[in-house]
Amino acid sequence: MPLFLLDMVGPVSRRIPEATVARLPVYLRSLVELAGANVTTVSSERLAERCGVNAAKVRKDLSHLGTYGTRGVGYDVDVLLSQISRELGLTQDWPVAIVGLGNLGHALANYRGFGARGFHVVALFDADPRRVGERIDGISIRPMEDLLAVAAATHIAIGIIAVPAAVAQQVADRLVDAGVHSILNFAPTVLTVPARVSLRKVDLSIELQILSFYSQRLADGVDDPAHEATA
Amino acid sequence: MPLFLLDMVGPVSRRIPEATVARLPVYLRSLVELAGANVTTVSSERLAERCGVNAAKVRKDLSHLGTYGTRGVGYDVDVLLSQISRELGLTQDWPVAIVGLGNLGHALANYRGFGARGFHVVALFDADPRRVGERIDGISIRPMEDLLAVAAATHIAIGIIAVPAAVAQQVADRLVDAGVHSILNFAPTVLTVPARVSLRKVDLSIELQILSFYSQRLADGVDDPAHEATA
Repeated sequence: MPLFLLDMVGPVSRRIPEATVARLPVYLRSLVELAGANVTTVSSERLAERCGVNAAKVRKDLSHLGTYGTRGVGYDVDVLLSQISRELGLTQDWPVAIVGLGNLGHALANYRGFGARGFHVVALFDADPRRVGERIDGISIRPMEDLLAVAAATHIAIGIIAVPAAVAQQVADRLVDAGVHSILNFAPTVLTVPARVSLRKVDLSIELQILSFYSQRLADGVDDPAHEATA
Repeated sequence: MPLFLLDMVGPVSRRIPEATVARLPVYLRSLVELAGANVTTVSSERLAERCGVNAAKVRKDLSHLGTYGTRGVGYDVDVLLSQISRELGLTQDWPVAIVGLGNLGHALANYRGFGARGFHVVALFDADPRRVGERIDGISIRPMEDLLAVAAATHIAIGIIAVPAAVAQQVADRLVDAGVHSILNFAPTVLTVPARVSLRKVDLSIELQILSFYSQRLADGVDDPAHEATA
């Protein structure tokens, strides 16, 4: 598992560490908030504080994009916003399919945060015939048998797996067979996909475990200045 | 926002960087999988590869817990598992309340990944009278008015906010008033809480944005060896 990715087609050959890629959406979220508050420039220190990393890391991360702030002024918020958006591929549309329309699938299908970032839910699939035909936000839930045809017609780029753990691998296999190159797995199980497919897993309990660490400190009577008073 | 936390009550005065705290649940998840596969020792290289970080960082992170692997052998899986669990406070029970029982709240209330890590959902609240009284996994949804009394009786440690963005701050305020010290926010909005309260936000679109980065590389024809073939 290489930690660096070689971009061989860009005008400048750039390697962006995975950890940097993982922080770009966090910077982006903060920049969107700053832009919304009509803030036009931001220092690496302020951006770092808002994102819970240190300023040197912010500067290093952004230097991977070829972006260097102006000394004493900082970064132009709008410019940085569009640079990160472009780097993350958010300036293009990504057709998304959700498989499994239980409570979590429903919540994801209704989640407004996706559309704003170029992720458009174009198809919904469920193995349960009782769910097939139900419409969520204008899109009908289809049977799994339609996956191949729909993927071909809508060019599904990202498949979201929101099915029970026991059938998640089988769903992943079908998504891969249908030509889906990126999979986001919410099922609490480890999946295996071919090397050409990108796979990420969301574990809803990870944030709770981090909170638990700080709760324990509080319970132990450590008067810990809040590590993140605004988030 | 200090990046380091000073533990002033432990037998050894230790500072654990926030970034390390954030990685501990990722190591833990991998160790649970290894233990489940009857693996008894793991090298920093293997653990690093499974978790998508580099081996030096794994060793550094674990050294903050006072844990050093044996050269040429690695770490004892069971010992490391219990050390991280203890450090994260997962060896004790954390009573959790969920506010907002829409689709996401329902999904969280049913999420089996919580209980296994010491997080026990003890109370559910919703402002909608039509939802009040409904039972999920044996727990009745209560009106918001009951929050103070229930928090006092059940010692709610962590409050999960799964309400619409427009009312999330108001819910956070009520949780804080009820003495809840840790809040996990799923609403797509920025919340403010007193410095003594720990607050973390889950943005379900962040993982999609990371996937987008890799999807874009694929679309550009970069034959990128999968950065994470198993996850």
